[in-house]
Amino acid sequence: MKLSELGEFALITLVRNITNKSKDLQQASWQQLLVGIGDDAAAWQGDNYIQLATTDSLVQGIHFDLNNTTWEELGWKALAVNLSDIAAMGGTPKYALISLALPGELETENISQFCHSIASLAAEFGVAIAGGNITTSPNIVITVTVLGNSKTKSVLRRSTATPGEQVAVTGPLGLSAAGLKMFKENISLDTQTTSILRRAHLQPVPRIREGQILAQHGVKTAIDISDGLIADLGHICEASKVGAKIEMEQVPTHPLVKANFPNYHELALYGGEDYELLFTADKSIIDQAKQALDCPIAIIGDIVEETLPDRVTLLDTKGNIIPTKKGGWEHFRSEIPKAKFA
Amino acid sequence: MKLSELGEFALITLVRNITNKSKDLQQASWQQLLVGIGDDAAAWQGDNYIQLATTDSLVQGIHFDLNNTTWEELGWKALAVNLSDIAAMGGTPKYALISLALPGELETENISQFCHSIASLAAEFGVAIAGGNITTSPNIVITVTVLGNSKTKSVLRRSTATPGEQVAVTGPLGLSAAGLKMFKENISLDTQTTSILRRAHLQPVPRIREGQILAQHGVKTAIDISDGLIADLGHICEASKVGAKIEMEQVPTHPLVKANFPNYHELALYGGEDYELLFTADKSIIDQAKQALDCPIAIIGDIVEETLPDRVTLLDTKGNIIPTKKGGWEHFRSEIPKAKFA
Repeated sequence: MKLSELGEFALITLVRNITNKSKDLQQASWQQLLVGIGDDAAAWQGDNYIQLATTDSLVQGIHFDLNNTTWEELGWKALAVNLSDIAAMGGTPKYALISLALPGELETENISQFCHSIASLAAEFGVAIAGGNITTSPNIVITVTVLGNSKTKSVLRRSTATPGEQVAVTGPLGLSAAGLKMFKENISLDTQTTSILRRAHLQPVPRIREGQILAQHGVKTAIDISDGLIADLGHICEASKVGAKIEMEQVPTHPLVKANFPNYHELALYGGEDYELLFTADKSIIDQAKQALDCPIAIIGDIVEETLPDRVTLLDTKGNIIPTKKGGWEHFRSEIPKAKFA
Repeated sequence: MKLSELGEFALITLVRNITNKSKDLQQASWQQLLVGIGDDAAAWQGDNYIQLATTDSLVQGIHFDLNNTTWEELGWKALAVNLSDIAAMGGTPKYALISLALPGELETENISQFCHSIASLAAEFGVAIAGGNITTSPNIVITVTVLGNSKTKSVLRRSTATPGEQVAVTGPLGLSAAGLKMFKENISLDTQTTSILRRAHLQPVPRIREGQILAQHGVKTAIDISDGLIADLGHICEASKVGAKIEMEQVPTHPLVKANFPNYHELALYGGEDYELLFTADKSIIDQAKQALDCPIAIIGDIVEETLPDRVTLLDTKGNIIPTKKGGWEHFRSEIPKAKFA
């Protein structure tokens, strides 16, 4: 069977199953591993802290197009998507390793711009760029690894959602997908809107502080929205063996998306790459966390007992079910490999 | 200027200079960073141990050719080259993250073989595969990150060689380059020799235990031989601001390389990818370490005061200088991008 038939998520399961066969609880590394393959970041018990590690790649032609992405934006995004994974664990990023696979015909000046930008985002979050690797490659592949830690005794996971909890999100959705749509379809918008959409898609701001505050207030379950709200909530439901009911009208959608894109619901539900945090907790915990946070928290639904085959149920204001699309980004399977939405 | 004109090492310097501008000693991450960009692995002060992190990529068409590499061998090598970097710091590998950028037309079975092999090498060294990333890509790029630690208070570095020290290596050289030459030139050798050369090139064994023993016995300076003996010794000399004199006849060359390849000196000196440890220390330290090691230690020369422009001087048995080639692997610049030797 080809990977394109198997799909990304089945492939992750296959990698996990095979590598877990080498699990050996006689070994300190396995004993101390708290979160292995299948969450936003790996976590293991360090001496005083929980250690976190995550890695993410940007591939030319799949994740970015140099015709509508500057090297500064690429540097920012390559680090930001990894910082977002640390945010989704409630952690603090500390060190980054940068692996660059680059064609020899690239201009040195572009790599300088890339480095200045990645260094400036790193500085903003107190991250030291500690190492990496450079190699020739026919196609650009940028892989960043971020190491961090967690001060709280527990990290935010995907597998801890419980029926009765509310589902919430840290900010409005759809802006990044709208930016991508604008690029792909050459949609002409006013300068300010263009700039906001571009920034949302190419220079997302990781919710580091927000993730830490959620963890401090007792939230146990979170994921960052990279594949799309419905898909990422599906990841939580699958890992937690629960279901979720979402009220579509409660899903916060950015006003600029509503104003300029008739399919704004689709962009908010399936778009992805917003890098907002999607989390679940009891109402009282969310209420307390809300007061400590600067960002707008929207309650969008509830965790329920497991529902199969569709783990996530989308409802209109009258409680009628709206069929969900097999949405969200899945590598190898997506029909439009450069789009993050169906 | 294009990267192909700048070359890999100047590019690493550029990345280091730019990212070091964001250095902020108010930040704990920078305060605790012991070894940044430019060594085999990054190192920082953890609570009880020194933490190590390294990353290395294998790019299809640059580092491997699927016509003469199985997926098992690829899995092994992808992890082994990273473990070797931890060995070169004298550390213990603990966790690995695996990033796979893969074309959708690949067979799932091949990725299974890859995972079984990487898991088996990981198990051999007590490494837990803790996470990673999977993405679509037009060309295969495998990036592995290994995290480890060091029990000794000091880690092996490139920048600590001192005039008066001896230069030594943990085993015979040239076997991996001979294996690559055999593949590239379709050289026909007997079955056993073919198998040994193939294994040396595609399934190198990282010198983890040896690196730890060297560090325990007071060795301060080491590198693993990936670019080639002369090139890697040049990296030590450059980082340490010293020179080195090597006696060519003292360089240990594998008997199978001597027997089958008339240019065996070239393969041993410039071939690379042997993943033996090249280290420097006072004679008394090397003598003590030798007794604790199972592998054959060869003394091949001495560290001297800095000599420029050629940091490494190669001598014949009469003390005459043999001109060194601008040898060793350098990404972007190498004329034969798939070969590790000139």
